[in-house]
Amino acid sequence: MIGDSITDCGRKKPEGEGRNDSLGTGYVSLVDGFLQAVYPELHVRVMNKGLSGNNVRDLQARWQEDVLDLKPDWVSVLIGINDVWRQYDLPQIVERHVLIEEYEAKLRDLVVRTKPGVKGLVLMTPFYIEPNPEDKMRAAMDRYGAVVKAIAEEQGTIFVDTQQAFEPVLEHIYPAALAWDRVHPNTTGHMTLARAFLNAIGFAWNGAK
Amino acid sequence: MIGDSITDCGRKKPEGEGRNDSLGTGYVSLVDGFLQAVYPELHVRVMNKGLSGNNVRDLQARWQEDVLDLKPDWVSVLIGINDVWRQYDLPQIVERHVLIEEYEAKLRDLVVRTKPGVKGLVLMTPFYIEPNPEDKMRAAMDRYGAVVKAIAEEQGTIFVDTQQAFEPVLEHIYPAALAWDRVHPNTTGHMTLARAFLNAIGFAWNGAK
Amino acid sequence: MIGDSITDCGRKKPEGEGRNDSLGTGYVSLVDGFLQAVYPELHVRVMNKGLSGNNVRDLQARWQEDVLDLKPDWVSVLIGINDVWRQYDLPQIVERHVLIEEYEAKLRDLVVRTKPGVKGLVLMTPFYIEPNPEDKMRAAMDRYGAVVKAIAEEQGTIFVDTQQAFEPVLEHIYPAALAWDRVHPNTTGHMTLARAFLNAIGFAWNGAK
Amino acid sequence: MIGDSITDCGRKKPEGEGRNDSLGTGYVSLVDGFLQAVYPELHVRVMNKGLSGNNVRDLQARWQEDVLDLKPDWVSVLIGINDVWRQYDLPQIVERHVLIEEYEAKLRDLVVRTKPGVKGLVLMTPFYIEPNPEDKMRAAMDRYGAVVKAIAEEQGTIFVDTQQAFEPVLEHIYPAALAWDRVHPNTTGHMTLARAFLNAIGFAWNGAK
Amino acid sequence: MIGDSITDCGRKKPEGEGRNDSLGTGYVSLVDGFLQAVYPELHVRVMNKGLSGNNVRDLQARWQEDVLDLKPDWVSVLIGINDVWRQYDLPQIVERHVLIEEYEAKLRDLVVRTKPGVKGLVLMTPFYIEPNPEDKMRAAMDRYGAVVKAIAEEQGTIFVDTQQAFEPVLEHIYPAALAWDRVHPNTTGHMTLARAFLNAIGFAWNGAK
Amino acid sequence: MIGDSITDCGRKKPEGEGRNDSLGTGYVSLVDGFLQAVYPELHVRVMNKGLSGNNVRDLQARWQEDVLDLKPDWVSVLIGINDVWRQYDLPQIVERHVLIEEYEAKLRDLVVRTKPGVKGLVLMTPFYIEPNPEDKMRAAMDRYGAVVKAIAEEQGTIFVDTQQAFEPVLEHIYPAALAWDRVHPNTTGHMTLARAFLNAIGFAWNGAK
Amino acid sequence: MIGDSITDCGRKKPEGEGRNDSLGTGYVSLVDGFLQAVYPELHVRVMNKGLSGNNVRDLQARWQEDVLDLKPDWVSVLIGINDVWRQYDLPQIVERHVLIEEYEAKLRDLVVRTKPGVKGLVLMTPFYIEPNPEDKMRAAMDRYGAVVKAIAEEQGTIFVDTQQAFEPVLEHIYPAALAWDRVHPNTTGHMTLARAFLNAIGFAWNGAK
Amino acid sequence: MIGDSITDCGRKKPEGEGRNDSLGTGYVSLVDGFLQAVYPELHVRVMNKGLSGNNVRDLQARWQEDVLDLKPDWVSVLIGINDVWRQYDLPQIVERHVLIEEYEAKLRDLVVRTKPGVKGLVLMTPFYIEPNPEDKMRAAMDRYGAVVKAIAEEQGTIFVDTQQAFEPVLEHIYPAALAWDRVHPNTTGHMTLARAFLNAIGFAWNGAK
Repeated sequence: MIGDSITDCGRKKPEGEGRNDSLGTGYVSLVDGFLQAVYPELHVRVMNKGLSGNNVRDLQARWQEDVLDLKPDWVSVLIGINDVWRQYDLPQIVERHVLIEEYEAKLRDLVVRTKPGVKGLVLMTPFYIEPNPEDKMRAAMDRYGAVVKAIAEEQGTIFVDTQQAFEPVLEHIYPAALAWDRVHPNTTGHMTLARAFLNAIGFAWNGAK
Repeated sequence: MIGDSITDCGRKKPEGEGRNDSLGTGYVSLVDGFLQAVYPELHVRVMNKGLSGNNVRDLQARWQEDVLDLKPDWVSVLIGINDVWRQYDLPQIVERHVLIEEYEAKLRDLVVRTKPGVKGLVLMTPFYIEPNPEDKMRAAMDRYGAVVKAIAEEQGTIFVDTQQAFEPVLEHIYPAALAWDRVHPNTTGHMTLARAFLNAIGFAWNGAK
Repeated sequence: MIGDSITDCGRKKPEGEGRNDSLGTGYVSLVDGFLQAVYPELHVRVMNKGLSGNNVRDLQARWQEDVLDLKPDWVSVLIGINDVWRQYDLPQIVERHVLIEEYEAKLRDLVVRTKPGVKGLVLMTPFYIEPNPEDKMRAAMDRYGAVVKAIAEEQGTIFVDTQQAFEPVLEHIYPAALAWDRVHPNTTGHMTLARAFLNAIGFAWNGAK
Repeated sequence: MIGDSITDCGRKKPEGEGRNDSLGTGYVSLVDGFLQAVYPELHVRVMNKGLSGNNVRDLQARWQEDVLDLKPDWVSVLIGINDVWRQYDLPQIVERHVLIEEYEAKLRDLVVRTKPGVKGLVLMTPFYIEPNPEDKMRAAMDRYGAVVKAIAEEQGTIFVDTQQAFEPVLEHIYPAALAWDRVHPNTTGHMTLARAFLNAIGFAWNGAK
Repeated sequence: MIGDSITDCGRKKPEGEGRNDSLGTGYVSLVDGFLQAVYPELHVRVMNKGLSGNNVRDLQARWQEDVLDLKPDWVSVLIGINDVWRQYDLPQIVERHVLIEEYEAKLRDLVVRTKPGVKGLVLMTPFYIEPNPEDKMRAAMDRYGAVVKAIAEEQGTIFVDTQQAFEPVLEHIYPAALAWDRVHPNTTGHMTLARAFLNAIGFAWNGAK
Repeated sequence: MIGDSITDCGRKKPEGEGRNDSLGTGYVSLVDGFLQAVYPELHVRVMNKGLSGNNVRDLQARWQEDVLDLKPDWVSVLIGINDVWRQYDLPQIVERHVLIEEYEAKLRDLVVRTKPGVKGLVLMTPFYIEPNPEDKMRAAMDRYGAVVKAIAEEQGTIFVDTQQAFEPVLEHIYPAALAWDRVHPNTTGHMTLARAFLNAIGFAWNGAK
Repeated sequence: MIGDSITDCGRKKPEGEGRNDSLGTGYVSLVDGFLQAVYPELHVRVMNKGLSGNNVRDLQARWQEDVLDLKPDWVSVLIGINDVWRQYDLPQIVERHVLIEEYEAKLRDLVVRTKPGVKGLVLMTPFYIEPNPEDKMRAAMDRYGAVVKAIAEEQGTIFVDTQQAFEPVLEHIYPAALAWDRVHPNTTGHMTLARAFLNAIGFAWNGAK
Repeated sequence: MIGDSITDCGRKKPEGEGRNDSLGTGYVSLVDGFLQAVYPELHVRVMNKGLSGNNVRDLQARWQEDVLDLKPDWVSVLIGINDVWRQYDLPQIVERHVLIEEYEAKLRDLVVRTKPGVKGLVLMTPFYIEPNPEDKMRAAMDRYGAVVKAIAEEQGTIFVDTQQAFEPVLEHIYPAALAWDRVHPNTTGHMTLARAFLNAIGFAWNGAK
C-alpha cells in the first residue's frame, strides 16, 4: 500500500512492515489488523510504502524500487492530496504544484506499468475533509478524484471513492472533529478509509465473519 | 471503559478523551473510531479510564472518582490480568498478588455499586495469549475468567469472553506474533478485542452498516 | 493584552514581558515592536497575559489577578475562539462548550468591572479564517463576534473587527496559506491582526511616522 | 534576501521559504508578512538565504548557487557585520577579518554580476547598535556602511541606511534594550529594519493601504 | 564470544571490550567477571562480538572480520534463536526465516573454517524459556539445538546445552519471571547461562577456588 | 541489603526490587541472580535498599522505615565508605565527615535494634581498592573495617571482610582496572564482593551445586 | 562569596561548594583554585552563594540564611550590576530598577549587620565592560561603584575596584572580546577579577610563592 | 598547545580557539586567560589542539596537519599519560599500550621535526596524582617523565616537570581531592599545571605585573 502521509502515518522506516507499529497508525494498520484478526488463515502480508509529503511525481521516482521490484500480488495507491494542497497552502512555490494533466499522465503511467504483473490494483481517490463542494480546494480535489475514477474504469482496477466515504460522516460531524487540518484524519477518519478499502476489495467489513 | 494497560494503551493523562490519541492505541480507540465512523449520528462519548499495572484493588480504590462520579450511561471493565500475572512473574512479591477470592469479592462489589445507576455494564474477561490450556498462568487466567462469567450471569451484565475471542486467531498465528509477552497485543490483538466488544454490545461489526 | 493561544503565541511564563520573545511571536509582539520602533519616546509597556486554550470562563477566573491587580492604563481582550471551537471539534465534551448567552454575560461582566479604572478598553472579535459564511463554525463565530460588537457599542470601548480584517486577505489567499487549522495564523495573519489593532487605537500603521 | 545572522534569524534549512517560521523571526519575516497581509494580490514570493556568521567572502562563495541560479526578480543584501565584528571580538584570528578593501571589491563584484539579470537590487548597510560614533567598532562599521552607499550610488541600486534607521530609536532607548550584544536586534530592532526596507522599495509602511 | 542479542546484551559498539559495561550486562560479562575475580593470574581477555538480531547468516557474513581476523585462542558461539523466532513472530516475512538445513550447513561451515586455528571452540545451543516441549516454537528450538549437538560431536568441540541448563530452574520459576518474552533472560537467566558455560570449559563455578 | 552507592548501583527507585535491573547492576544483583539460578526452590526475596552517597548517619535516619518496618528475615549492611571518603576528597566540608567514634556508635545502634527481630545479620566492611596499606585513606578505611569486625564479633553477626576479599585480586590487577576511583568497582569487583558474601552466608559459590 | 550571575557563573545548586565545578567557572573558582594550589596548607574553604539575576534587594532577602547563618570568617560581596542594568535594558519594568539611594541603604545595612561577626569583609564594585565613561550605563555604574567605595571606607572593609581593574585590559582589547554583552566576562575577564580580589586580600597573585 | 584529555578538557571541536570555552576548562584556558589579562598588549594567540584519549602515536599521526601546517611560533606538548595508563587499566588490550622505547622514539621524532621552524618548544611531563613513588603506575609515569626530561635537555627545549609541581600540593591535599581518578585534575590541579607552565616560559605568575 503506497501513498503520502495518510498512508505513511508514522510507519517504521526504511521498511513499513514487521513488528507492531511498523505499519503506522492509519488505515493501513487497520486494514492489516482486520485481515489478520478475521482471516488469520490467509496469512496476508501487508507492506506500507507511504511517505509523508509525496505527490505523484515522488511515487513515479521510486515506483521501480518501492513497488515493482517487490513483485507484490496486490498494489493499492492513495495519492494526489499534496499535488493539490501545495497549490493552496504554498501558492507561490509553483514548482511543488502538480497540475491535473501531469497528475493524470503520471498516475496512468504507474497503473499501466504495474497491471500486467499483479493480481489486482486498488486506486483510492485523494480527499479533502471539507463538506462545502464550492470550497476551492475541495472542488480541485474532486477534479483529481474524477481523474482517478476515470483511470480506474479505463484500466479495469478496483476503485475506492474515499471522498464519498466521508460524506455520511460529515453529515453529523464537523471537519475539525475528524482532522485538525481537514487532511490528516484521526482514528475515526482512518476507520472510514479502512472500511471503504475493505468493502472495495470484497473482504467486507460487514461480511459473514 | 476502565481497566489496566490493555485498556490504557498510552492514553492521555489525566483525562483519556478529547483529541486524537487521547484514547490510546488499543481496543478502546478502535471501538470509538468504529462507532464514530459508522454511527456518527449517535454522538457516542467514550472515555478511557484504563491505567497501566492496575488490578482489581486499584480499580476499587479509584472507582468512586473515576467511574461513579462521572455518572456514565454505560461502563465496561477489563481487569484481572495483573491480579494473576504478578503471581507468576514476581512470585516473591506476594503483596501484589490478588488471589481469586479477593478478586471475585472486589469485582462483584464494583458491579453491585454501579449497576443501579447505569443503562448497562460490560464485563470482559482477562486473557492470556497462550494456546496451551495446561500452561500454569493460562489455567489461572481461565479460572479468573470463569469468575467474571459467573458474576456477569449473576448480576445480569453483558459479558465478553476475550479468551475465547482469541481462540480462532491462535489456531493460525503463534502467540509471539500477537503479543511479545503474551499479554500486550498488537493491532491484530486489539482488533480482536474490539470486535468481540462490539458484537457483545449489539453494534455488530458485521451489522447492516 | 489578554486572550487565548492567539494572544499567548508562545509567550514567556509566568510573565509575558521583558526580554525578547517574552511577548511570544504573534500580534502582541508585532504591536509592541511597532510601538517601540516608531514611538520610542512613549515608552509604552506591553504585557501579554494570553493563555493557550482559554475561553471567557477562564478569563473571568483569573481577571482579578491577571488584569485588575496590575492596574493597567489600557486593556485589550481577544476571546471567544475556544468558546466556539470546542462545540465543533469536541462536540461530545459539552462541559467545555461556552454557549453564546454565557459568553455574552461573562464578557460584559469583565468590561463593566474594568472600565472605571482604565483609560481605555479594546475589544477584539474572535475570528475563523474560513471565507464561506455558511460554514457552521464560521457562522457561529460571526454570532459571537456580533456579541462583542454589541458590548463594545453599549459600553463605549474601542472595537476591532478581526474577522473583517481578514476579508481582503482571503480574497487572494486560501485559508490553508494563512493558518493550518483556520485558527492559528502565520505571520501574515498576525500582521493582519496587528494592523487592525493599531488602526483601531489610532497609532495608525499608515500614520505620518 | 541574503545576508548573515540578522537575515537568517533561525530560518528553516536548507530552504528558507514555505510554511510558517521558514523565513525565521527577523526582518525578512516581517517584510514578507507585511507584503502578504497588505498586498496579497501581488503574490510576492520571498526567500530567505541568510546564513549565520557569513561575511562577504561567504556570500561570494555561494552566490552562483544561492542567488543567480534562482533567477530572482529582486535581490536584497545585508552583509558586513561579521566582516567588521571579527576584527574586534576575535582580534587574534586574523584570517577571519575581512578588511575594507576586500569588502568593497567583493561586494561590488556581487552587484556587478547580478544587476543585469534582475529588476532591482537592494543594498543594506551593516549596522552596530551603539550610539557613540567614536566607539572603535561603530566607527569601523560606519566606514563599511559608506562603502555600501558608494557602491549603491555607483551601480544605481536601491539603498537602505540601516544605521541611520536606528538613530531616532537610539535617542530614546539604550542599546541593551534593542540587542543584547549590540548586533542581534529584538523585535523592535527588526521592525526598524523592516520599515526602512519597505520604505526604500516604495511599498511604504505608511502608504495608503 | 559471538552471537545474537543474548550475547550482545547492550555491549559497547563497535568494540565489545575495554572499560566497564563494554561487555554488556549478560552472560559474557558474568563469565568475564568470574574469570577476572577468581583467576586474575590468567589475565584472560574476553571480547563480546554479539549483535542483536543476528542469525547464522549474519554471523557467516562477518565471520572473517569479527572472528578469524582477530586470531582468538578460543571462540564461543550462541546462535539460532532468531533463525527460529522469525518463523513464529513474523511468519509472513519469509526472507528472514533460516530453515534448519541452511542453519546446519552454515553453522558447520563456521566451525570447520575456525577449528584449525584455535585452541578450542564452544558451541552453545539456542534456547526458548518455555517448559512445554510441545509448544511449536520450543519444539523447533529443540530441533535446532540437536543440530548444534550433532555438529559439536562431529567436530569435537565443547558443547553447552543451554536449554537443559534452564530445566531445573523452570521447575520452580514460571517463564515470565525469567524473561518477559521467553527469550531475553534477566540476571537469573544469564547467571544460568554463565554457569553452564563455565562448567563446560572446566573453570567450574563449583571448582576448588 | 542496605548501604551506599556500592549497594545501590543504579537500582530502581523508590523500590529496589521487582523486574530486571530493579536490583541495580552490582553485587546485590549478582547475589540474587546466583540464588535464584542455583537455589530456585528457596524462592528467596532480595530487596536492595542502597542509596548513593549514604553514610551511617543516613542509614540511621531511614532505618525504621527502610529496614525494621519491612520485617526482613535477614539484613545485610555495607556502610562506611562515604564516612571516610569525605574526609579525604572534601576535607574542608567537615560536617560531612563521620569520625570513627560516631561511626562505631551508630553502626552498633543499628545492629542492636535489629538483631532481636531477624534470623541473621550480615556486616560487610567498607573497602578501598588501594593495595598500599600506608595510603592515608586506605589506612583509615582499615580502621573502620576493624570497627565492623569488632561489632560483628561482639554482637554475633555474620562478618564479611570485603577488603580482604580484594587482596588476591589486587596481587594481579592494578586498582585502575577494577574501579576508576578505587571505590566503585566494575563487574570483576562486584563479583568479588558477591562471592565473599555468598561464602559468608554459607550458600557457597564453590558449594556442591 | 556572594553576588549575582558574575559570582554564580553556573555554580552547583543549592550549594555552591564541593566537587569540581561546584563553584562555577568564574572568578570564585579561580580564586579558590589559586588558594588551594598555592596555599594548600591553609585549607581555605570557599563557598559560592552567587545567584543569577540578583540585585541588592535579593541579597538582603536571603542574607540571614545565605550568609549570617553560615557564620563565615570572611565575606565578599559583588552586587549592583542588575540594579543598574534593568534601568537600561528593561526601562519600562520600573519595579525591577534599584535606584541609587535604595542601593546604598541596603548595601550599608548588609555591611553593618555582618561586620561584627566576621574577620573581614570584601566589597567589590559592580562594573560595566565599556571604556567610554560618557556611555549612560557606564556612567551610572560608576556612580554605584562610588557608593561601594564610600561604604567600604566608612565601614573599614577591604575594597576591590573591579572597574579600575579592567582599565588596562580595555586599553588593548575591545569590549566584545571580553564579554558578549559587556557584562558577563570570559575567562580573561574573570582572571582580571580574580587577580584584583587576590591582590586586595593580600594573598597577592604576584607574591613570593 | 597539544596533548590528551588534560589539554583538551572539553575544548570546542574541530577548532580549539575563538569564543569563550573554545579552549576548554583546563590549564590551556587558564594560561590564555592569564596572558590576555596581564599582558593584553602582546595579543598572544593560543590554540588548543588536545584530544581526549590520545597517546604519542596519535600525536604523530596528526602532527603534520595539527601542528606543522599551522606554522606556530611556539608549541607545547603534554603527552604520555594514556601511553602508561592503558598498561594498568586495560592490561589485556596490549595493542593500546605504548611502551617506553616507542614513546621515546616518537616523542623525539616530533621534537626534531618541529624545532627548526619554531621560536620555542615546551615539553611537559606526564603525571599521576599519586604521592606514593612505589605505586606501580606512578613509578612507570616517573620513568616516562624522565624520558621527557632527557629529550628536553638533549634538544634544548623548555621543560616543565608537572609531577614535581604537584608535590607541594600533595603534601597537604589527598589525591582524591585533586582528581577523582588521579589523572583528570579539578581547577586546583589545572591551576598547578598553569603556574608551572607560566613559570617555565618566563611570564611568571609571580612576576612584576
